[in-house]
Amino acid sequence: MSGLEITFREPSSDATDTEALWQILQPTFAAGETYCIPRDVSRAEALAYWSDSPHRTVLAVSGEEIVGSYFLTPNQRAGGSHVCNCGFVTKADTAGRGVATKMLLHALAEARRLGFRAMQFNFVVSTNVRAVRLWERHGFAVVGRLPGAFCHPSVGYVDAFVMYRSLLDNERETAPAQDASSEAARRLREFDLK
Amino acid sequence: MSGLEITFREPSSDATDTEALWQILQPTFAAGETYCIPRDVSRAEALAYWSDSPHRTVLAVSGEEIVGSYFLTPNQRAGGSHVCNCGFVTKADTAGRGVATKMLLHALAEARRLGFRAMQFNFVVSTNVRAVRLWERHGFAVVGRLPGAFCHPSVGYVDAFVMYRSLLDNERETAPAQDASSEAARRLREFDLK
Repeated sequence: MSGLEITFREPSSDATDTEALWQILQPTFAAGETYCIPRDVSRAEALAYWSDSPHRTVLAVSGEEIVGSYFLTPNQRAGGSHVCNCGFVTKADTAGRGVATKMLLHALAEARRLGFRAMQFNFVVSTNVRAVRLWERHGFAVVGRLPGAFCHPSVGYVDAFVMYRSLLDNERETAPAQDASSEAARRLREFDLK
Repeated sequence: MSGLEITFREPSSDATDTEALWQILQPTFAAGETYCIPRDVSRAEALAYWSDSPHRTVLAVSGEEIVGSYFLTPNQRAGGSHVCNCGFVTKADTAGRGVATKMLLHALAEARRLGFRAMQFNFVVSTNVRAVRLWERHGFAVVGRLPGAFCHPSVGYVDAFVMYRSLLDNERETAPAQDASSEAARRLREFDLK
């Protein structure tokens, strides 16, 4: 299958976007293989997990169809708010057509634009080999291994990875703590105002 | 200084315990050196961070005085709910008198009693050397290093560690995925009913 042309936009507040997002999230969470979310999670809870503040939610659109979504959020507050976190979900029938890659590239650009210094994935299930390979191909390293931290519905206890990549052009770049704190504060305010 | 005799109990709902807990949390958060919490965090927000569900909060008491506190919580939900997380805080003027060690031992016992299989600390600031040494002395390993993930108010960007230890007698212990899911569900219900 060939790659899809993808555009990105924020969700509108109308019911169509919300329903389309739920139709992508539901099978992913129900499978229980990649996220620490109850497999029978309700629609409201799933949408809140994905989109509630301070998450910045983005939709990936092909033609008229929503084919994926990601959220971008500070991974910690205050002294840790210069590192962001993302979650990605792709519509099942578009697998292998480059949607996840395009979303990641968009998320990395957004994260840089917002001034984040690094991106961290806290819990990548080790059996999710396609995701691990994709992140590694785009500069993420496994910086941590959590032994048996995930109970996979068919495999049982498997490891989870912490993955991390710098967003700085020069990884040795440093800034005085004071400036960094102000920058973090500004960024969080921007998220709050979303 | 000699070690203190410590007993453990749940917080009561009266104002005295709440105020004592805030008096310990406030200087810790205001220092901004160990937690990703705004240094000017409000009393209400700090107490909510420490004690809101599903956190199980425990007070360490010496005589009549509250000298420390910890919380114990599942670190993730669903497929990750068999791993717990804790936060610890010690009253400043009791440093070096074994309060943190006794709280950790109590938390490890509580975590085992509740059926958790492992304990994970998600974000141990690398400059918090006393904490890192204490965790290592009690079986935790640094399983991840997050480069520059914390902005220390005086040192600037420093690494943070992910630390982890098994709570199983036999680390090779495994269980069918189905049983584990039921166990996780039971444990979360117990937390919800707290």
